[in-house]
Amino acid sequence: MASAIALNGLLKTARHPWMESWNKPNLMTEFRNTYAVIMAGGIGSRFWPMSRESQPKQFLDILGTGRSLIQMTFDRLHRMIPAENILVVTQERYRDLVSEHLPNIPLENVLCEPFIRNTAPCIAYANHWVRAKAGKLAHEACIVVAPADHLILDEPGFIDITKTAIEHTQSTNQLVTLGIKPSRPDTGYGYIQFEDIANAADHRVRAVKTFTEKPQLELAEQFIASGDFYWNSGIFIWSLKNITEAFENHLPEMQELFVEHANAFTTPGEKEAIASIYGDCENISIDYGIMEKASNVAVVLSDFGWSDLGTWASLHEKLPLDESGNGTAGVDLMSHESIGNVVVSNSQSDGSRKTIAIRGLNNYIIVDTADSLLICPKSDEQWVKQLVTSLKAKKTKD
Amino acid sequence: MASAIALNGLLKTARHPWMESWNKPNLMTEFRNTYAVIMAGGIGSRFWPMSRESQPKQFLDILGTGRSLIQMTFDRLHRMIPAENILVVTQERYRDLVSEHLPNIPLENVLCEPFIRNTAPCIAYANHWVRAKAGKLAHEACIVVAPADHLILDEPGFIDITKTAIEHTQSTNQLVTLGIKPSRPDTGYGYIQFEDIANAADHRVRAVKTFTEKPQLELAEQFIASGDFYWNSGIFIWSLKNITEAFENHLPEMQELFVEHANAFTTPGEKEAIASIYGDCENISIDYGIMEKASNVAVVLSDFGWSDLGTWASLHEKLPLDESGNGTAGVDLMSHESIGNVVVSNSQSDGSRKTIAIRGLNNYIIVDTADSLLICPKSDEQWVKQLVTSLKAKKTKD
Repeated sequence: MASAIALNGLLKTARHPWMESWNKPNLMTEFRNTYAVIMAGGIGSRFWPMSRESQPKQFLDILGTGRSLIQMTFDRLHRMIPAENILVVTQERYRDLVSEHLPNIPLENVLCEPFIRNTAPCIAYANHWVRAKAGKLAHEACIVVAPADHLILDEPGFIDITKTAIEHTQSTNQLVTLGIKPSRPDTGYGYIQFEDIANAADHRVRAVKTFTEKPQLELAEQFIASGDFYWNSGIFIWSLKNITEAFENHLPEMQELFVEHANAFTTPGEKEAIASIYGDCENISIDYGIMEKASNVAVVLSDFGWSDLGTWASLHEKLPLDESGNGTAGVDLMSHESIGNVVVSNSQSDGSRKTIAIRGLNNYIIVDTADSLLICPKSDEQWVKQLVTSLKAKKTKD
Repeated sequence: MASAIALNGLLKTARHPWMESWNKPNLMTEFRNTYAVIMAGGIGSRFWPMSRESQPKQFLDILGTGRSLIQMTFDRLHRMIPAENILVVTQERYRDLVSEHLPNIPLENVLCEPFIRNTAPCIAYANHWVRAKAGKLAHEACIVVAPADHLILDEPGFIDITKTAIEHTQSTNQLVTLGIKPSRPDTGYGYIQFEDIANAADHRVRAVKTFTEKPQLELAEQFIASGDFYWNSGIFIWSLKNITEAFENHLPEMQELFVEHANAFTTPGEKEAIASIYGDCENISIDYGIMEKASNVAVVLSDFGWSDLGTWASLHEKLPLDESGNGTAGVDLMSHESIGNVVVSNSQSDGSRKTIAIRGLNNYIIVDTADSLLICPKSDEQWVKQLVTSLKAKKTKD
């Protein structure tokens, strides 16, 4: 509860007046043949010291709201999609954590990859699982693919956009990605260039012209200035039919591997089948393997308070700020001559806030956990990844 | 154990080769009529967040050695003085803490002041308790007075000096204070000017010319340059006879108050007596009330690795340092572009060390406890006292 109080500012944003007037339809019926795939296999080492191999980023309550990122992702999707249609693709080692965080989804919905692969095999696995699960309704099934560790503040906005995307993929042969209105020339994101003119019923649905992954700053600035580019959120919506055709066209060998074992999904033979498939499977991202090659891709232009929380600094703008621009979560901050810091703690096992007193610090990241503490300038944040590598090496040496 | 490893450097200093060859005499016999008074009534708020009203500095294992400061003080005195002759003057609220930290001293040896007074009443109380306790041997009793929260690295050196001081006060009418060879023009200490020529058998024993409390920097620099000044350690040695005469001469009213209730000490009536005495007693330090006025004061020139640990910065020079001059206790430090910091943690309840990663910090104090964290430039250390006041006010308001 204490943590929730700390996030008053944030909660006010999340519970915007339009939320009150938003009537929840009987989504369970409307979306009974829609599936959600939560991708939860990563570690998020840039979020050290909060993220660990044993407790990756998606399982953290980074904002101190009482819900982990994967729980918030589930909650958001569950507003539309019934729990039995929500699946999580993760690693075997995180199976129990997933079940612990998401007790409402059936155990069989936790799909475990035998080892980490990029997003294309992960999505192919989910596609075939959905095909087996949906049975005779498979030809009409629709799938929402979402990373487990993103933040979305405007949930009704997300639902609205997602519904638009579902309608679009159902009524066309197109694959849909959600584009995010960019707020800065961030060089860490992918950019989607879209057509000026809307051909769909909803003007927010645009044909994609180009994808550009992580541009240089100058180019990113040009993208922003042009107004024709949105960030690639990594959230995809497609009918099972459309994505299956895309795999057949662009990753036919991978598709073939899965088709060979099609009968194994949702059966006791699934584990063995997936081990065999993954052994032979190309390690490629869905963006590179399909989205950048396909001509039938649409983007829905979105602006629903999204962040991939890729770095501590990216978290900053999502946190409630004090008058000096210090953002906190899980912390009672006392500051003096200190501006623009991110100060986060989850070290208190009783859920209370840690008292943190800082002086003479500007634009630092301060992250306190039960057994570790990080103090680092925001501008040197890339150090965190090195640090995790050094710590691992040290651990091995010890 | 982990903490002990962190302090390897320090322990090496403390266990210097001369220590091995130092044979412990049968001190219990030699010093059976010598008493030690450990003054343990303060809070040490400058050591926030480690020190709290509920856990003052003297009860902290600040160095991570596994022994609190009061325990180290007891251990040091107990090398000479039997446990039943060691008394602690503290506040009622810390009685249980004292017994917990020092289970070897009799319960009746924990003298509780009804409220905080300066050092003169505290010492008068101890004098009268010793008089009652020593009985017919009182005229020959000797007393070592030591603050509970100081650090002394060279224990044999301290014992040697203290024995010299005891012999001196026993064979003369003089009060003895231990002077510490100054290492810097610190403006937070008292300075003792001493006579050039030794009149005693031991050349380290000198007559005191002047006391100067907390000089300005320029004056402190002159003191250091002259070579005639040592720091006042606040450790006193005197025979009961000599200190009693001093009270009679310089604080006769206070002495009178105690004498009136002389029969109550070490009896069930002690608590009531001391409450009555303290109600009327002047609130004055032993330095101001006696030492600075008396002409019969000697100083023993000492250099036994002393620190009053008055501030986090003063702790710095007592800690083991890495190649960048960062001093740590209770911490596994990973640092980059960070010089001259004090990094201390006692937040791990299992005694393990906290991993702390810092970057781009020079000359900061970083103190991590289970529920609080301080990050502050060493040069702004006086802020900590204000901070404690603000926190108290806030607590009251909440």
